[in-house]
Amino acid sequence: MSKLTDLPKRIIIGRALHSDRLGETLLPKRIALPVFASDPLSSVAYAPGEVLLVLSVAGVSAYNFSPWIAVAVVVLMFTVVASYRQNVHAYPSGGGDYEVANTNLGPKAGLTVASALLVDYVLTVAVSISSGIENLGSAVPFIIEHKTICAIAVILLLTLMNLRGVKESGKLFAIPTYVFVGGVFLMIAWGAFRGLVLGDSMRAPTADYTINAEHKGLAGFALVFLLLRAFSSGCAALTGVEAISNGVPAFRKPKSRNAATTLALMGGLAVTMFCGIIALAMVTHVRMAEDPAVHLLKNGSPVGDGYTQNPVISQVAEAVFGSGSFLFVVLAAATALVLFLAANTAYNGFPLLGSILAQDRYLPRQLHTRGDRLAFSNGIVLLAAAAAVLVYLYGADSTKLIQLYIVGVFVSFTLSQTGMVRHWNRHLRTETDPAARRRMVRSRAINTFGAFFTGLVLVVVLLTKFTHGAWVALLGMVVFYVTMTAIRRHYDSVAEEIAVADDAGDDVVRPSRLHSIVLVSKVHKPTLRALAYAKLMRSDNLEALSISVDPEETKTLREEWERRGIDVPLKILDSPYREITRPVIDYVKSLRKESPRDAVSVFIPEYVVGHWYEHLLHNQSALRLKGRLLFTPGVMVTSVPWQLDSSEAARRRARKRAEWNAPGSVRRGPVPQQRREKAAAKD
Amino acid sequence: MSKLTDLPKRIIIGRALHSDRLGETLLPKRIALPVFASDPLSSVAYAPGEVLLVLSVAGVSAYNFSPWIAVAVVVLMFTVVASYRQNVHAYPSGGGDYEVANTNLGPKAGLTVASALLVDYVLTVAVSISSGIENLGSAVPFIIEHKTICAIAVILLLTLMNLRGVKESGKLFAIPTYVFVGGVFLMIAWGAFRGLVLGDSMRAPTADYTINAEHKGLAGFALVFLLLRAFSSGCAALTGVEAISNGVPAFRKPKSRNAATTLALMGGLAVTMFCGIIALAMVTHVRMAEDPAVHLLKNGSPVGDGYTQNPVISQVAEAVFGSGSFLFVVLAAATALVLFLAANTAYNGFPLLGSILAQDRYLPRQLHTRGDRLAFSNGIVLLAAAAAVLVYLYGADSTKLIQLYIVGVFVSFTLSQTGMVRHWNRHLRTETDPAARRRMVRSRAINTFGAFFTGLVLVVVLLTKFTHGAWVALLGMVVFYVTMTAIRRHYDSVAEEIAVADDAGDDVVRPSRLHSIVLVSKVHKPTLRALAYAKLMRSDNLEALSISVDPEETKTLREEWERRGIDVPLKILDSPYREITRPVIDYVKSLRKESPRDAVSVFIPEYVVGHWYEHLLHNQSALRLKGRLLFTPGVMVTSVPWQLDSSEAARRRARKRAEWNAPGSVRRGPVPQQRREKAAAKD
Repeated sequence: MSKLTDLPKRIIIGRALHSDRLGETLLPKRIALPVFASDPLSSVAYAPGEVLLVLSVAGVSAYNFSPWIAVAVVVLMFTVVASYRQNVHAYPSGGGDYEVANTNLGPKAGLTVASALLVDYVLTVAVSISSGIENLGSAVPFIIEHKTICAIAVILLLTLMNLRGVKESGKLFAIPTYVFVGGVFLMIAWGAFRGLVLGDSMRAPTADYTINAEHKGLAGFALVFLLLRAFSSGCAALTGVEAISNGVPAFRKPKSRNAATTLALMGGLAVTMFCGIIALAMVTHVRMAEDPAVHLLKNGSPVGDGYTQNPVISQVAEAVFGSGSFLFVVLAAATALVLFLAANTAYNGFPLLGSILAQDRYLPRQLHTRGDRLAFSNGIVLLAAAAAVLVYLYGADSTKLIQLYIVGVFVSFTLSQTGMVRHWNRHLRTETDPAARRRMVRSRAINTFGAFFTGLVLVVVLLTKFTHGAWVALLGMVVFYVTMTAIRRHYDSVAEEIAVADDAGDDVVRPSRLHSIVLVSKVHKPTLRALAYAKLMRSDNLEALSISVDPEETKTLREEWERRGIDVPLKILDSPYREITRPVIDYVKSLRKESPRDAVSVFIPEYVVGHWYEHLLHNQSALRLKGRLLFTPGVMVTSVPWQLDSSEAARRRARKRAEWNAPGSVRRGPVPQQRREKAAAKD
Repeated sequence: MSKLTDLPKRIIIGRALHSDRLGETLLPKRIALPVFASDPLSSVAYAPGEVLLVLSVAGVSAYNFSPWIAVAVVVLMFTVVASYRQNVHAYPSGGGDYEVANTNLGPKAGLTVASALLVDYVLTVAVSISSGIENLGSAVPFIIEHKTICAIAVILLLTLMNLRGVKESGKLFAIPTYVFVGGVFLMIAWGAFRGLVLGDSMRAPTADYTINAEHKGLAGFALVFLLLRAFSSGCAALTGVEAISNGVPAFRKPKSRNAATTLALMGGLAVTMFCGIIALAMVTHVRMAEDPAVHLLKNGSPVGDGYTQNPVISQVAEAVFGSGSFLFVVLAAATALVLFLAANTAYNGFPLLGSILAQDRYLPRQLHTRGDRLAFSNGIVLLAAAAAVLVYLYGADSTKLIQLYIVGVFVSFTLSQTGMVRHWNRHLRTETDPAARRRMVRSRAINTFGAFFTGLVLVVVLLTKFTHGAWVALLGMVVFYVTMTAIRRHYDSVAEEIAVADDAGDDVVRPSRLHSIVLVSKVHKPTLRALAYAKLMRSDNLEALSISVDPEETKTLREEWERRGIDVPLKILDSPYREITRPVIDYVKSLRKESPRDAVSVFIPEYVVGHWYEHLLHNQSALRLKGRLLFTPGVMVTSVPWQLDSSEAARRRARKRAEWNAPGSVRRGPVPQQRREKAAAKD
């Protein structure tokens, strides 16, 4: 693996940053925008299409509602951006939605948000990669023919990259994101120029198709429901907006202001692109249907199963730039790349959130350690596996996957905004400065509106999408919630168990004497070293212990022992059944029984090896013995290592690992102070 | 799992034997026969059918050769039995084929035999279970319709039973084996009575079918080749004969004589049943074809894909006892059960051979420990997985699987017999007593003939079966051979590396002073215990070390430390990146650099937990730190355990495990002395 990904990585992102240099990598706005906004910006690649898809159920005439839906999405986007600008100012330490909900609404709300976000990260990977594959497929038909396998291959690639520790680099994100944004804007501008100035009639490849409406002449409640569903789908454009509020510490100073500005910029770009694409789709007569094989007609007959429905952005690009033109291909590639980068943000966000949850003891503690490769690996593999399963089950169909999406996003939006309202209420109770109070009242009003609006959208999403797949997302949330609650309960009970009473020092019985045992099988260097070390640790009683599984070997050992004049008494225990563990345990127990106030110290010579398969060949009995010994009260076990030559390789690997940077370290910002006030406040 | 298999197990085999009682379980002949002979005896359930199948290629007329083939098999069986009777007398310690070849022909021959036997065990499981399922299927059609899945289910069941430690119990083996042998003899007798005395014309269910010969009028070399192929298939009846020679120590005294008698008994029973079934098959006009769908005709047209070809033993039973009769069903059930027991012998033989190979350092050492559950588990899972893969790949078709079988058996037969010839040669060189010399010369003659005959069969099997599947078995042998050679090479190089020069005591540098460090995160009971123990181990320098990942927590720790007046200096290292491992390693290294002749002892408080999932929640940083520390020269690591309440469950499990008996312990016999002379002779 090392050789496999190293060279491309070096080429793409340059020499890996040593974490001591992390302090230098504060992000200017122009880099922060692509780092944090690739997710929300990339969603304009699929969100407009989803709106048209849903509307198509009521026939082409329903497409006329799409500008209204776009308006609703724009209003929602402005609301959310405005709300999160308040978050950014109120929590300059990078309090994400989890933090905000946890602090202001209590741990249950916090955990709900966390569960929602975890599910969301999985879906970000699944949806973004599926959509990226579809966009790439509009230029390269081979890919669309092997959609699922290609999507899973991309997941695998991202996973390997992240496991290796290719971390977010500003520049890596900047180029494709800017190419994408630039390309979309150029497309909108060129489309407007051709349409308005040149008067060209641009036609999408599906312009001549007709749609066989599933429900003709929909009206009243049914129509409203359909429009709400279309709106829900359009809301996919809002996913990822909260990312900036997590990443404030990564910004250059003034952090909050810069973050807020970037947030506004991102919102502005996203809605412009969203509306532009919807408008171009209308002008170029893009035709999309939910089930194209049946409902999309070409010359009056259904297009059938062989038909591939290209994403709206690629159809529009084809109409504006011309089929197969250079710009069309560049835009398709940039779209796919931005979508893959959006998926990559989940690879960074997942362990980051995990680390925060671990600090609050909802997840295993070690996830909290920054740069702990193993902890991150577990998170990354879990994320990738869940996303791959979803991609496989839904055939890498972004339209189907989007049905599960958004629920989580709006759960966290709503709870976060509600939490912000509480936040301001609390601060208003003590704040006396009129100017500050005015600002707070204004912020509270914005957050209240945000909470109300996003809550409303959440209800709409749940109502319109529940049977379409939102239940899967809810189920996922419940699973995460229950697991994390159980972990927290476990930690709490252990903490209680091991707490030392404030007054007592007697909780821990102090042993009076120490009996040391060195386990010996043969006279070789590891044994001699263990003996030397055991002698150094002066104890009241020192003896060497060997288990006789073979009389011949035992005889040899005894002779060697005498010949070399080793000055530690050698005790030999018989083991007619060739067992090692039980005689040792029994002997230790008998020592403890004789003098219960003594402690026993067992020295085990251990081989340190360099490769995982060597572990299978060595130390197995030592490890098992150690495992059993630890269950015996009053015993401690000392490993005296002997480094085999092959261990040099492992040492090198370990050193390399130590220099590794965890994914997401750029967006986390260099200062781990961020959550300290919080932790202190709660303790 | 515990609850799942415990009750049926208790019911079937009674209370588990404690290994102290192993000494009582020496086997009388009447129990030893079923224990060791279920494999060779059960093979008469498929071997006769395989002969007919191969012959059918040349049409029904070729069936007339089957008595001649039976005669050849009988001669071979007598040769092999006679040869192994010599082994039993020469190696009363239970020297299996591996031992014999290793001692007399050198390690390469020994390893070849070992590889062959390992492959053979896998095939014993695959073939026996597939055949058992086919026999069961002749009574219960549902099973034959879901052949592969049923076979894999049986493998799974046997695996679980063996993992749990249901060991071979004489009685468990005796009943079905005797029912099977009794049933077959009853069938032969009743068939003879009906045919010869009553003059009934018994007709097998396929008696009216005709065979469309693949090659009509085969003659000359082609015919000879076909007959040799049929003979090779018939040789399946010889698999498992060597089992008794491994198990001599398990017999009652006089061990060798009893074992030799049992061997002869087994050979007699097997050939009688083999010939009886072939004869009945001829009389009842059983018709079998290699590819029945095409080559078996009913009223002149092929029977087609839907046809299930029942095993010859069940067809004969149907003809003799009547279709669906009580005895028919009992025999089918007993046949299946005996075949499953035969598969179970491989579950016992595989770890047994593994243990011997481990003693010779061809496999990981710990496999040598008797009653080491984990070691056996690995072997059992490996065996089951390999067998399941074969069953899956070959659709649980015993006919196809048999093509891979036998190669291994005859490789080990041939090498073992050749080894015996060398054995006698060596002894003849020194033996002077004329009576003994006469016996030896006679034995040598028998073994020479055995070696020659089995070697010939091996060549025949290789020639006639290579393209039919024997190459798979050979490939498997090569894989085992190469792996074991590599393991041995590794162990040898390590042994050389750690050997102490005879004259020098300076190989191991003796440190002069000891610096002890207790790792501390909070003041709780585990920490206090670790401190108390560290103080007990008097060192030149003792300090507590804490890594500051959070200033608040560190402050609390420092205050607690002072408040409680703990008399060990507390050193706090900063870790701005929330890492634990690196600061500790760096600190230890700096200590070593300051005074290179000092040793460093690191005390780590560890939680002892009761469930595997709790491991994920605790000790992770401790374990990782320990792993890294062991790579640093001059360091030893002491785990000071704190038993959490939940660890009680694990202790109970561990105790239960300690009372567990390894599969195969009955056939190994109670005395582990068996191989000692050998080991001593070689060292």
